[in-house]
Amino acid sequence: MNDIRLNKQIEFILEIDKLKKVYRQSVITDGSREENDAEHSWHLAVMAIVLHEYANDTNIDLLKVLKMVLIHDIVEIDAGDTFIYDKKGNEKKAQREMMAAERIFGLLPEEQYMEFKKLWEEFEARETPEAKFAATLDRLEPLLLNAKTGGHTWKKFNITSERVLQKNLHTKQGSAKLWEYINDLIEECIDKGYLKK
Amino acid sequence: MNDIRLNKQIEFILEIDKLKKVYRQSVITDGSREENDAEHSWHLAVMAIVLHEYANDTNIDLLKVLKMVLIHDIVEIDAGDTFIYDKKGNEKKAQREMMAAERIFGLLPEEQYMEFKKLWEEFEARETPEAKFAATLDRLEPLLLNAKTGGHTWKKFNITSERVLQKNLHTKQGSAKLWEYINDLIEECIDKGYLKK
Repeated sequence: MNDIRLNKQIEFILEIDKLKKVYRQSVITDGSREENDAEHSWHLAVMAIVLHEYANDTNIDLLKVLKMVLIHDIVEIDAGDTFIYDKKGNEKKAQREMMAAERIFGLLPEEQYMEFKKLWEEFEARETPEAKFAATLDRLEPLLLNAKTGGHTWKKFNITSERVLQKNLHTKQGSAKLWEYINDLIEECIDKGYLKK
Repeated sequence: MNDIRLNKQIEFILEIDKLKKVYRQSVITDGSREENDAEHSWHLAVMAIVLHEYANDTNIDLLKVLKMVLIHDIVEIDAGDTFIYDKKGNEKKAQREMMAAERIFGLLPEEQYMEFKKLWEEFEARETPEAKFAATLDRLEPLLLNAKTGGHTWKKFNITSERVLQKNLHTKQGSAKLWEYINDLIEECIDKGYLKK
């Protein structure tokens, strides 16, 4: 079809298929294999629909949260998944991801490129109610997977409860209620021996 | 946490993780393996954000479309993925899926169960503008994967272009523009030898 705009959009849609090959550290609930970024993004989106009542901001824009969580990891097609507890890997992460955002979102028509880049930057900055809530979900999901699989990732990388707590503290900015849940869940995982003190 | 409502929601969130293990006939763009329903649902959701300008109904509710495509395949956790060209498998599909909807969405608090079941029924009935557009995306995505992988699924199951056209005719109800694109793409795939006349 000789339609430049639609062809650009389709090229982007085909390019992001690669997110199905970017694997994370978390394993899926049956423990059989690592989860990939496309699955993770889908899971966050359904979680947003189910749990948005717990956002601190009761006027949260659910559509914006959904857009954010659906696209937040697309940059990892180029930049790779950086494990949250990998200090060294996180140092140059921002630069790698910015270049990825420009290349991949840049496949889209200009105003969609701007929209997606802005959404992604808003998510990363974690300043608006929507970004804070999206970040809360982005922490809660791997925690649930870890709790369900006997602490798979924590054990594999020898992560202590202090580090988990520290990395999850910001979730209270998105949802006091879900932070309380997370806090209880971490305690429970320590009691069960899934997570070391 | 002693919170019945939140515990139900978390139970649902953990249950739907199983969608990551429901494999479809389509392979991902590098041809390396079948795509699963969670990845497929994520892909449709991003497609809805990028392509909703082409919906026949210019006032389409994008949030509703996103909710629909994100949950439309959850019933397949129990009912399995039924290949669109499998006549026999499609006969009892509706009944299997209704039971699955009741069990899985039934894990949620009552009013969310009702919301999800209604959304899923609306998607299946394909009568509203949002459902028609969601169905268009649900057809376009595997077509794009097939076109990108040299007609993988068509060749594997000996599917002819007439059957593909027939199964995609309804996409024009959701988007005349995307139907035109699909029609051209099918022609192109015949020319390239990916699809038999």
